Amino acid sequence: MHELVEELFKREFSNQTLNELSDSAIIKSLPLKDHDFCFTTDSYVVTPIFFPGGDIGKLAVCGTINDLAVVGAKPLYLSAGFIIEEGLEYKILEQVTQSMADTARTEGVTIVTGDTKVVEKKGLDKLFINTSGIGIKDKKLNFSTSSITPGDKIIINGPIAEHGLAVLTARGKFDFQTKIKSDCAGLGGLIEKIISQESSGIKFMRDPTRGGVAATLNEIVKDKDFGISVFEDQIPLKEEARALCEILGFDPLYVANEGKAVVVSSQKSAGPVLKIMQAHPLGRESRIIGEITKTPKAKVIMKTTSGGSRIVDIPVGEQLPRIC
Amino acid sequence: MHELVEELFKREFSNQTLNELSDSAIIKSLPLKDHDFCFTTDSYVVTPIFFPGGDIGKLAVCGTINDLAVVGAKPLYLSAGFIIEEGLEYKILEQVTQSMADTARTEGVTIVTGDTKVVEKKGLDKLFINTSGIGIKDKKLNFSTSSITPGDKIIINGPIAEHGLAVLTARGKFDFQTKIKSDCAGLGGLIEKIISQESSGIKFMRDPTRGGVAATLNEIVKDKDFGISVFEDQIPLKEEARALCEILGFDPLYVANEGKAVVVSSQKSAGPVLKIMQAHPLGRESRIIGEITKTPKAKVIMKTTSGGSRIVDIPVGEQLPRIC
Repeated sequence: MHELVEELFKREFSNQTLNELSDSAIIKSLPLKDHDFCFTTDSYVVTPIFFPGGDIGKLAVCGTINDLAVVGAKPLYLSAGFIIEEGLEYKILEQVTQSMADTARTEGVTIVTGDTKVVEKKGLDKLFINTSGIGIKDKKLNFSTSSITPGDKIIINGPIAEHGLAVLTARGKFDFQTKIKSDCAGLGGLIEKIISQESSGIKFMRDPTRGGVAATLNEIVKDKDFGISVFEDQIPLKEEARALCEILGFDPLYVANEGKAVVVSSQKSAGPVLKIMQAHPLGRESRIIGEITKTPKAKVIMKTTSGGSRIVDIPVGEQLPRIC
Repeated sequence: MHELVEELFKREFSNQTLNELSDSAIIKSLPLKDHDFCFTTDSYVVTPIFFPGGDIGKLAVCGTINDLAVVGAKPLYLSAGFIIEEGLEYKILEQVTQSMADTARTEGVTIVTGDTKVVEKKGLDKLFINTSGIGIKDKKLNFSTSSITPGDKIIINGPIAEHGLAVLTARGKFDFQTKIKSDCAGLGGLIEKIISQESSGIKFMRDPTRGGVAATLNEIVKDKDFGISVFEDQIPLKEEARALCEILGFDPLYVANEGKAVVVSSQKSAGPVLKIMQAHPLGRESRIIGEITKTPKAKVIMKTTSGGSRIVDIPVGEQLPRIC
């Protein structure tokens, strides 16, 4: 279905900006002096709407900010479209709205337009939120997978798999408790630091949400004449998350994150970029987790802790529905 | 609920741009030479998703274009966020997507970014679409209800109530057939003509969607020291629509439109504006339907066909849920 949809939209809406299929549309023809104008959209249908470490409101603001930030844009303005289930408690809506507002303030973005629709009660959906975001990006910044070459390093800003696991445990389907919290966070500040101090060495960035780090790495190598090696023992993963993944039979590499950025940097810049990231509150546990390799082309290979290696496949379907 | 929500968002998201509560957010601080940047969002939850005269896709493109057009902006780019019910037939999604693409092409806007979420099957919801839109507006155009003065005329570009009635009959709840089609249309071209030829006489424009013309007229007079008189015998209304409203006990003034603009023009410009509108395919049946009056303040008065007069109240709640 997902592929069909992507193909359909590409075909039907075809235009140069959309076809880039970037996290944000980069619109070059608007008369912004030295800047491109960036525009992105995301609907949030996470269930439950409150989970350890966040809620649908915080997620909706952070997620859209992150989509702008990873293309190098400074997030500026957001829209907020609510679809509310009839009978939703006002208190819940209030809490979510406050969470959105707080997050927007912290992240320095402004929600400038909105819309609300109410639909009849059908189950436990409660609330969907769409946020669209706009930002501006220095015309000199042109991150792209096509600038990536063998030897480039892959850096991540901290432990993975926490958002997916936190939402899943919040669904209350397990008879055990965990302390895992969603990593839900706005990456505008962290990425601004990287860009302002070491932009020339950055090749590409993406936030590994649905499908996790595995999906992002596979997107990077797709149709390319290079591959990626990831080092299992370098991937930041909290002990609790590792244990829960083992119990559930999940590969943490496929579990969604909401406050992570995968950064591809030149070999030369990798050290300085890592230092910049580690100096930021959202990057203390940053690590170089892999590198771009000449072969095998278009594949992601995991160098396992035990000294072996295995292919990290493209995620098939949605592992965890309604995770964001 | 609606008032609570409006108040809540105003309080929580409070900022100068949002507080205008305009159809589009007008962002003046972006460095667009001689232009303001406009940004709007709307979620579409209409049921059924196909109805005489349109579908949810056409509606989602036209509705957002119209929100930009009525503030004087040239619509440029749209985002499209889909929330799809699991099991939705691909053919339906294809049809809707094609409809969006066709409409966007016709209206000269580009859909530059999108997102898809799939949610579990719960009933007949099928598909929700959010479109956000951006456009640019000449800085010299500043339509506002505060520029309105007694003597100004109220013009509409054609027969009312058709969208609401078309959707309602498409729900198949009546045992009779009607020929009523939704007026769903993009108003960018019509409004561009008005602005390019007679902008100085235009005080304010709005598209009378949910709550119909009654809601729009009441918004115009809200907290103002002027009122509005509307002339019942001047309001364009097709015979079929009139008859259906009579059967259903609806006041057509409260029924949603999706291809109409209410234009407030100076007395002097009303004639020329009417002529410009009547020369456009979407304005052939344009009429002056009312005027701004000194008294009674902040009220809308209907001068009835029978020579009487009555207050046109603010619509209470949503007369017809999921009409857009």
